[in-house]
Parts: sequence; structure tokens; C-alpha cells
Amino acid sequence: MPTINRQLRLQNRPKGLLAPGDLQPVEDPVAPLSDGQALARVKYLSIDPTMRVWMVADTYLPAVPIGEVMRAFGFAEIIESRHPDYQKGDRVMGLTGLQDYVIVDSLDKRSFQKVPKIPFVSDTAFLGVLGINGLTAFFGMEIAQPKKGETLVVSAAAGATGSIVGQIGKIHGCRVIGIAGTDEKCAWIVKDLGFDAAINYKHPDWKEKLAAATPNGIDIDFENVGGEIMQAVLGRMNLFGRVVVCGLISGYTKEDPGMASFATVLVKRLRVQGFIILDYASRFMEAAKQLGQWKMFGKLKDRETIVEGLEKASDAINMLFTGGNTGKLIVKV
Amino acid sequence: MPTINRQLRLQNRPKGLLAPGDLQPVEDPVAPLSDGQALARVKYLSIDPTMRVWMVADTYLPAVPIGEVMRAFGFAEIIESRHPDYQKGDRVMGLTGLQDYVIVDSLDKRSFQKVPKIPFVSDTAFLGVLGINGLTAFFGMEIAQPKKGETLVVSAAAGATGSIVGQIGKIHGCRVIGIAGTDEKCAWIVKDLGFDAAINYKHPDWKEKLAAATPNGIDIDFENVGGEIMQAVLGRMNLFGRVVVCGLISGYTKEDPGMASFATVLVKRLRVQGFIILDYASRFMEAAKQLGQWKMFGKLKDRETIVEGLEKASDAINMLFTGGNTGKLIVKV
Repeated sequence: MPTINRQLRLQNRPKGLLAPGDLQPVEDPVAPLSDGQALARVKYLSIDPTMRVWMVADTYLPAVPIGEVMRAFGFAEIIESRHPDYQKGDRVMGLTGLQDYVIVDSLDKRSFQKVPKIPFVSDTAFLGVLGINGLTAFFGMEIAQPKKGETLVVSAAAGATGSIVGQIGKIHGCRVIGIAGTDEKCAWIVKDLGFDAAINYKHPDWKEKLAAATPNGIDIDFENVGGEIMQAVLGRMNLFGRVVVCGLISGYTKEDPGMASFATVLVKRLRVQGFIILDYASRFMEAAKQLGQWKMFGKLKDRETIVEGLEKASDAINMLFTGGNTGKLIVKV
Repeated sequence: MPTINRQLRLQNRPKGLLAPGDLQPVEDPVAPLSDGQALARVKYLSIDPTMRVWMVADTYLPAVPIGEVMRAFGFAEIIESRHPDYQKGDRVMGLTGLQDYVIVDSLDKRSFQKVPKIPFVSDTAFLGVLGINGLTAFFGMEIAQPKKGETLVVSAAAGATGSIVGQIGKIHGCRVIGIAGTDEKCAWIVKDLGFDAAINYKHPDWKEKLAAATPNGIDIDFENVGGEIMQAVLGRMNLFGRVVVCGLISGYTKEDPGMASFATVLVKRLRVQGFIILDYASRFMEAAKQLGQWKMFGKLKDRETIVEGLEKASDAINMLFTGGNTGKLIVKV
């Protein structure tokens, strides 16, 4: 039984990127288990843009209170249990927080769930392609209602969610264009993932390239970033296009990147739908089955960027906003 | 057979409100009919915000070319026919334009349709409650998917479309709040039309009143105006609310009133849908039947503001943007 639990607690609400000290390392004693509790060792932490939101704003979950362990999804293994549903060795997923150990009790049932052992599927896949990112891509594309031959553009296309969105678009027979921030990311999504084209928005002529890559306009904008990229995509939307507003990552560290004109929505008769994955919790199993099948048949490829060490979590979060990761970003505790 | 056709032709593309001379009066000779043509006397002209758009911008129809008769919906009566489908005395509706007479030929079939004589239904009802405004309200509310007990807010609520939107909201069991620009309009929609509350946005404390009138937030925004009114309504939207973008009338004479944040759309998981009534042309009969039934059973009340004289059409169009009309605005030719 461990005695010390390293935690990262929220000390300041960041402005812009996280500064040293916004997350404060603390060594907390591990309390003995009561009946109905289990202790889990956190093995992997999912690093997601939404964490930056949790640090500053109430959304579907309240902002993390100052002084509390920073909220995060994680993958953990039960190491001791006085809870009837959990046995030593069970693997669980849920809101572990940025720490070495987490107590799982009956009150946590909603957020923790057991993870099966599946041959050829890595533990970390449950945080990415078969986890929150895969689910987000799946339900977002359900909202988008892609039709064969339509053109889909996804931003943050080499990210954990965007890379799966594009592959689901290909499964549905769409022409898929990804927007990303390095030539390496662009090469990955085209050569390995099968996107039809990729646009590096850091090239000065990227808007002309976007136009050239979407000769028939754009039917679906799977929006992850907002700002200038969103504006360029909206400008090329076809009549009756769909805009799935999944994230506005370009603005978590800046002013509002979501500004857009409903005049465009009106004239082009767009359907713009915001969504947050937790609203679909009751359908996660259904989606995970489909994602698992696609993965098994080689239709969904994924890549991970693994950062070693809990103490690197703050740097890892910043990587999301500076373009440092390709695919799923994970901290190995 | 008449010999002179008075027309109003588009001379300048207006900036802001229409200026004298933007619509130029012209006396055109009436050409003799060829086979396959019928001549109709225009009796009533529908004055709609979209006309201001047609003067300056290509949308779903191209902008009216300079020097051509200004486009408008109208109600007309066939006075002479060499067309097999039309007989003298037939009543028709369609894009007559701002003029005394219009030639209806087979090429016009798409835009003209015959109007039946229905007891107790006035000719002008086919331009308003049973015409383009009723249809717009009907299909807009279909997009909104109102549920019993939800709160609906409609702007330009005493206008031809808004006044019907609110009444359809009541039919669906919604709490209905209208926003309008005079106390008289507010009184009309509450006392005569059965809205639950009305907000005069020219009162300094209108935002507080809007908040007080929507204690459970807003589920549906039927958006006709944009700008500050839209911002206030969006600020009170509930999770999973719907925004039907039907018009942005506050901006046809100003800068873009449609600016809004997709961050709100994301966090509140809103569905924002732009629509233009002509997209629903194939379902007009179905909707007109329902509207006619509601009208017959007293569930839809309407009011008209009638301006006499073709030469007043320019002033009438400006009335739409200065709040001069209640209900349907019509020019009697």
C-alpha cells in the first residue's frame, strides 16, 4: 500500500498558456480505504483541450476550484479494493485527475467504468481512438450526416479527434480535407490515414490551397479550432452545409475565436450544431462497438504522443495549443 | 386592353434606407399578347424585407439588375388570355414586380400559381397569413421543433411573419414572448394574438424585462432581426436550444447584424439553422392547408397595413425598417 500520492493542484487560473506554478505539485498522504472504496494506480492521463477550459470556466462541469486536484481523464488499475464491484487488477477509466492514485467509490460509478482486456488493443487506445476522442468523432459525424461524395473539412486534423473524424469521413465516402499546422502532420494524415488532401495553415498561401482542394465547395465543417481557419472554411461552405462545432481550440488561450456571421448561416441555409460528448454518455457502448470494429478491420489508424512523468502534465497541456503533438496526447504517470 | 403600364424600375442600389430616385417610375407601353401569354392586372403587392436584399445582393435569386422592374410578390387578376391554362378572371400569385400589369406565360409557371376563391378569406390573405409569411412561419417552426412548455422568443413579433410564428408557438403549447418596437404593437400581440408577454425594445430596461419574461430561459429563438436584440436573446438560451435564422432585418440597412459567437453555440449545444422559404416550395400546399385550417378555426389572426398607390412602394419598403407597419404590409396598386 503506497503512502504518498503526488498530485497537481490548480493554484492559479491561467491566462493564455499555462505558466509555471498554475499547477502546484503537492504530496498528499494516501488515506486508508474505507468499506466501499477501492484504490487505483493512475497509469495514463488523457491530455485534452477541454482541460484548459476546466481551469477557467464553468461549462457542463463547473470550473475546477482553486486548490483542488486538476481534473483529467485517466486510465488506472485497481491495486486494493474494499468495494464489491472492483477487484485488484481491474482496469478502469474515468476522471482520475492529475495524480498518482485515485480512490474509486460508489459515488464515482457515473464517471468510472471498467475497461475490458482486448487482444491487440493497447491500454492507451481506451483514452483515444476507443475513448473520448473516438466517441467525439463518432457522434460529431452523426450530427454532420455525411453523404457519399460530399466534401468534409476538419481542422486540428492531426489531433486525437480530428484524425479520427477524417477517417470516419472516408468510411462514409466523403472527400476529406484536413487542416493542420506542420508539413509532417499533413503528410501523416494523407499518406497514413487516407485523407484526400491536407492544408498546412502556416504556409502563406494556405487559403488558395484550401480553395484548390475543395473545388466543389465544402459540405461539412467539423470545427475544432475557430478563428481565421473557421472563417476561411465558412467562406467556402455550400448551400445546406453543416457545421459541427466541436471545439474552438484557437481561442482557449486568446479572445473569442467563435465569432461568425449568422448572415452566412442564413444565406447558405447552414445547420450549425454545438455538441459536447458527455451529452451522449448513454450511447457510448454502441459507438465504442462500432469504433472497435473499424479499428479491428484497419479502418481507423491512430498515433500517440506520449509524455513521460506526471510532473510534465503542465507542459503537455501547453503542447495542445502550440501544435506540439500528433494524434493522441498522453502523459504516462 | 390597357396601353400604359406604370413600372418602378431599380435605378440605384440603395445604401441604408431607399432614397428618392432609387426606384424610378417609368411608363411602358403594354405590348400585344402573343400566343401562350396572358395579361394580369396587379392588384396587391407584398412588401417584404427581402426586397431590400434583392436590390443589392445575389442570394438565392440574383440581385435585380439596374434598369429592370423591381422584383416583388403580388396578387393579380387575369384580364386577357391567349394561354390555355389561364382565363379572364383567374386570380394568380407570384413575382409580379412593382408594376400595374404583368405578362404571365408558360416560362413563368414556376413563379405564378392560381389562387382559389375561398369564402371569408380576403385576397390579401394569400400574400400574408396564407402566403409567404404564413409559410415562412410554418416551416421555420417545423425547424424549431417546439415542445409543449418550452419558451419561444420571436423578434419583429408584430410583423407579418413574427405575428404568425408566435401564434403557431401557442398552438404547440409554448410560452411565447414577442419583441417589437412600439407599445401598440406589444399590446396587439398580447391582447389580440395571445402571446404570453411582449417586450418593447425601445424601452431602456427592455433587457431586464426580457429576463423577467423568460424565467426558465429560452428554448427557441425565431430570429428575424439580428444585432443587439439577437445578442440579448442568445444570452438567455437554454442548453440544446434552437435558433431559427429567418431574417436579420436590423442589418439590411446597416453593417452585419448577424455576428454571434459559436462559443455560445458550443457551450450551450445550440442548433442554429438558416432557412429560406423558397427551399420548401414543394411542400407549400401541405402547409397552406394547415394554415388555412388554423385560420378557419380562429387560431391565426392577422392584421394588414395597406398603403394605397404603386407610387408609394418606395416609402412602404422603408416602413419595414423604421417600424411603420403592424402585421402584413401591402401596397394596393
